[in-house]
Amino acid sequence: MAHPTLYGGIEGGGTKFNCAIGNSPENIIAEARFETTVPAETVGQVIEFFLPYASQLSGIGLGSFGPFDVDPSSPTYGYITTTPKPHWGNTNLLGMLREKLPLPITVELDVVVAGLGEAKWGASKNDSHSLYLTVGTGIGGGFIVDGKPLHGLTSAEMGHIRLARDPERDPFRGACPYHGDCFEGLAAGPALQARFGQRGETLPDDHPYWDLEAGYIAQALVNYILTLSPKRIIIGGGVMQKNFMFPWVRQKTQGLLNGYVNHETILHHIDEYIVPPALGNRAGVLGAIALAMG
Amino acid sequence: MAHPTLYGGIEGGGTKFNCAIGNSPENIIAEARFETTVPAETVGQVIEFFLPYASQLSGIGLGSFGPFDVDPSSPTYGYITTTPKPHWGNTNLLGMLREKLPLPITVELDVVVAGLGEAKWGASKNDSHSLYLTVGTGIGGGFIVDGKPLHGLTSAEMGHIRLARDPERDPFRGACPYHGDCFEGLAAGPALQARFGQRGETLPDDHPYWDLEAGYIAQALVNYILTLSPKRIIIGGGVMQKNFMFPWVRQKTQGLLNGYVNHETILHHIDEYIVPPALGNRAGVLGAIALAMG
Repeated sequence: MAHPTLYGGIEGGGTKFNCAIGNSPENIIAEARFETTVPAETVGQVIEFFLPYASQLSGIGLGSFGPFDVDPSSPTYGYITTTPKPHWGNTNLLGMLREKLPLPITVELDVVVAGLGEAKWGASKNDSHSLYLTVGTGIGGGFIVDGKPLHGLTSAEMGHIRLARDPERDPFRGACPYHGDCFEGLAAGPALQARFGQRGETLPDDHPYWDLEAGYIAQALVNYILTLSPKRIIIGGGVMQKNFMFPWVRQKTQGLLNGYVNHETILHHIDEYIVPPALGNRAGVLGAIALAMG
Repeated sequence: MAHPTLYGGIEGGGTKFNCAIGNSPENIIAEARFETTVPAETVGQVIEFFLPYASQLSGIGLGSFGPFDVDPSSPTYGYITTTPKPHWGNTNLLGMLREKLPLPITVELDVVVAGLGEAKWGASKNDSHSLYLTVGTGIGGGFIVDGKPLHGLTSAEMGHIRLARDPERDPFRGACPYHGDCFEGLAAGPALQARFGQRGETLPDDHPYWDLEAGYIAQALVNYILTLSPKRIIIGGGVMQKNFMFPWVRQKTQGLLNGYVNHETILHHIDEYIVPPALGNRAGVLGAIALAMG
């Protein structure tokens, strides 16, 4: 019997690195996760995991936390560049893997890779244009067109778009070191920490802030809808684990659009338009496999 | 001698319809413009212009003012739909043309067509990803990828994105009937008229408002850059005729991005990144020919 073609997937996150080998959600032959400690240790563990399978793999896909240089013409291609995360700044992640794993390795930002996974096997598998957004420690998005990420001058950095903030309702001036009250500066983990001195996960469900948070997410979705016109929007990340958030975000998005985008998906089927990842927390590592599959 | 293949282009605007026949900016064999009065009259004149050439044409491209339905699966495909412009609401523009001109006719929004023209022959002819924005009576944009407009669920309506307005600097609550102080509601012609009781063209160059206007345009560009990552941005429309606006918009865009998009085009070559149309006011009609050429 012929061996099926296998691929490796690596989701390199700020907390852990998820690795898997397979070629579909139903055919994963090995999985492992390693804590994100220091590059030599973590990447060493990743390499050890893949080495025994290397001869069976056609390639590896790597989705990394950012800022991650995915421009093949750049001298720092495959590097994690200016991250504030201790030990990880200016890390040649791709180079470390290539040195020990003689395989084609394809790289993208983590959020883009999750979007690829959802587009291949998940919530947007039938959609030519889909947006994957994560709202958690950071905010980022990947726009997938016909199975490929949209890449222009650089990778999109849509977590940093400017939004309207009403200083009477929200006097917090934002936590983004570059832009103050951009979307990420208002609505990601560090902003909640700065506002309330506690992590978002520990803020009670009935805290009035969640209404504001849903409003910021909805404002951002409105801008993405008007600019990109995705056929589906998938939102992952810690904030959306609060099970009341999806209905609020959907309702506020419709309210802000106010009927202007005259399409029945938005007017009448918003529950199917703005959705959680169908692959759950496996979107990233499966997306990395999808990336390797090309 | 063989006849070269010719195409027709129609730029249907709210003030006039520009028509041309040719296949490049250097080879236009006939041109005409007709006032936008009522559909029967204006479209009648357009048809009369093209009829003598019909047998020589391989197709016609039509860029129309909006809202213009460009979804081939829609029952109102090719209609100008809910425009407030008298006489033009619910006008089957494509149908009127098809009835008399038995040629393939391809349709897009006017701003998308101008973007196609610039991408084929103008300022973005060497760019795989370009954004064309018009800021005038209305605000709209077209994102062109590899010579084709990006179409997702609908056409993009990026003139209506939400921006941050500082009520102390600008107490005007916006003129958009759908969104109040969205980009178009703050910065297009009707907003200037509502603020000052006069047309933007007649506002003196040293009026303090222009600084705010440049700021709104820069905010919008920041959001487009972070979301779409165009390789070049072309801005047309009446507001950008003020020759001090380009330097202000460029400077404010850099200021708001604050070095976050670490690419030398934005950091060091912004003068070549945010530019006027190279085809000037011919971008639309030439773009319509480009649309017909496919």
